[in-house]
Amino acid sequence: MRRPINFNAGPATLPLPALERARAELLDFDGTGLSVMEHSHRGQAYEAVHNEAIALLRELLSIPAEFDVLFLQGGASMQFALVPMSFLPVGGSADHVVTGAWSEKAHQEAAAWAGIAGARARVAGSTKESGFTRVLRADEAQLDPAAAYVHFATNETIHGVQYLETPTFGRAPQVSDMSSDFLWRKVDVAPFSLVYGGAQKNIGPSGVTVVLARKAFLERGRKDLPKILQYRTHAEANSLLNTPPTFGIYLVRNVLDWIKTCGGLDAIEARNRAKAAELYGAVDASAGFYRSPVEVGSRSVMNVVFRLPTEALETRFVEEAGRAGMLGLKGHRSAGGIRVSLYNAVEPEWVTVLVSFMKDFAKKAG
Amino acid sequence: MRRPINFNAGPATLPLPALERARAELLDFDGTGLSVMEHSHRGQAYEAVHNEAIALLRELLSIPAEFDVLFLQGGASMQFALVPMSFLPVGGSADHVVTGAWSEKAHQEAAAWAGIAGARARVAGSTKESGFTRVLRADEAQLDPAAAYVHFATNETIHGVQYLETPTFGRAPQVSDMSSDFLWRKVDVAPFSLVYGGAQKNIGPSGVTVVLARKAFLERGRKDLPKILQYRTHAEANSLLNTPPTFGIYLVRNVLDWIKTCGGLDAIEARNRAKAAELYGAVDASAGFYRSPVEVGSRSVMNVVFRLPTEALETRFVEEAGRAGMLGLKGHRSAGGIRVSLYNAVEPEWVTVLVSFMKDFAKKAG
Repeated sequence: MRRPINFNAGPATLPLPALERARAELLDFDGTGLSVMEHSHRGQAYEAVHNEAIALLRELLSIPAEFDVLFLQGGASMQFALVPMSFLPVGGSADHVVTGAWSEKAHQEAAAWAGIAGARARVAGSTKESGFTRVLRADEAQLDPAAAYVHFATNETIHGVQYLETPTFGRAPQVSDMSSDFLWRKVDVAPFSLVYGGAQKNIGPSGVTVVLARKAFLERGRKDLPKILQYRTHAEANSLLNTPPTFGIYLVRNVLDWIKTCGGLDAIEARNRAKAAELYGAVDASAGFYRSPVEVGSRSVMNVVFRLPTEALETRFVEEAGRAGMLGLKGHRSAGGIRVSLYNAVEPEWVTVLVSFMKDFAKKAG
Repeated sequence: MRRPINFNAGPATLPLPALERARAELLDFDGTGLSVMEHSHRGQAYEAVHNEAIALLRELLSIPAEFDVLFLQGGASMQFALVPMSFLPVGGSADHVVTGAWSEKAHQEAAAWAGIAGARARVAGSTKESGFTRVLRADEAQLDPAAAYVHFATNETIHGVQYLETPTFGRAPQVSDMSSDFLWRKVDVAPFSLVYGGAQKNIGPSGVTVVLARKAFLERGRKDLPKILQYRTHAEANSLLNTPPTFGIYLVRNVLDWIKTCGGLDAIEARNRAKAAELYGAVDASAGFYRSPVEVGSRSVMNVVFRLPTEALETRFVEEAGRAGMLGLKGHRSAGGIRVSLYNAVEPEWVTVLVSFMKDFAKKAG
């Protein structure tokens, strides 16, 4: 059976070999006669998978030794709360850069915690007034030199806005939501103190959150919180403080292994850049029928958003594309328009099919 | 291939039909051509599974309409923190009944939060001095009549201690960790305000936490917390506030459907009681070679713990049983001895094999 063309924003399409591997050994993991999800998280069979996933992440991203690699739960949304709980000291302040729906939500959650903890979560800069159509330059931010950290999102999944180069917001520790930015290229994590992301974009299924963080930064986290809310305790326990989402982490392992088999992140990046170039090219070559609201220098390689002349045409576009076997093209309900997510497992051929459909649709409707 | 006999305490053995169903449709869920984990959590295909899982839980447990059914993440350990965060008011106090390692940990996490929030988490009663070998009777607890809630664990997975009848600790709302107690019989949730449990015992894979709670109780929760930490927001969003662990919830659906196919919880309970009776019978008939440290009225139907005359014999027992194809018999490192978890998917025949092994072992070594 031919797989549908899946442009979902997350949970997203997964590499077929990673899924086929999961199916092949679903009832018999590694010759044990048990499903991997029936193994104890304290047993050798699972721990080997767990440690292999961590080692593969370290290898693919060349993560420095002074960083911990954690697998947590709750998605990026849980990190929106856990980061200020650990790193926003009583009487302290954190700076937030807001460039889309997710970094805005991160600020709201931090502000809620700040209200409880007697601290502050400032908006150091925002592109909301211009409709989140570009990233904020570091020199536009009104930074607090005493900020405990600066939080921003390197890619905004809903608004299709991405930092194509890692910015530097002052000298405070940089903390970033990289959910839809993780692992489509070899990002250097050295400029950051902590980055996090939900797995359900490029890393695996939903239910696993990846955190990469400097050990020294984690050590500074608030120590009187319940242990389950502290990064430190998870780091000390190698993400086995309590039962982790074992099957999800197993699938992460499969996906990471697939990336390695593809030639690693440099090869994956070239493939992704070619997909995005083809799609943005089609938008720009449509004589205004398709319009990207995002400034050229901020256009996301992972989440391509564009508009059609009317909302009615956008609805028709999504419907007709659906009948042609293309799923997940409807923009987020808060933003409207069309969104095409081009995560690693999206085949280049799928983009070619979409671009061809776009040309036909514009000719017919334009 | 014959499945190994798996007595793991969790992640535990899962019903073969639930796993086979997952394997059969891993690459093509419900004729969609996609894995269920590649579907959007906002799409019809996944939402149908999500709502079916909730409906099956409601049906199997006859959950009253005034209760919400939530799927969260982070395991029971995360609930240890979230419960006091929502329900322990500033200046207030919660009562904890401690009957084993897990209810003790729940108290420690609540006490940490109480320290931050300016509240108290009292130990209203504990069986620690006697080594957690029995539950605490309600009349033994020193309850605070003004307590915001009373927390206890209906079953202690490590110490093998279980409330065979639901106790009533005063008039405060009753909150309970039921992780290893969920769904092996038809428990009435009406005496509780909130119960929770990690799925990885009787409900599904690790990475999903089930919460059943009175709507009115959730409504009283603290409203200034970050939204991701509030039960209310998850309830309002039908557990779709952010991306849920979709594949885990899909497997929960499969497991619940299997329970229904087996004849529901009454049939499952009869099966479980027979397994436990056979195993405790073998312990009691061994002329003291095997000794249950747990008082008869507190013996868990789900987690049977027993000791042998020496630790050396216990080690040999686990090793020889392992060679005979029986896994997961080693007691928790904090408790020692042998632990046999008899969750729903443990086949009665497996217990018969174990009992036969126990008789032979005692004869040889006794």
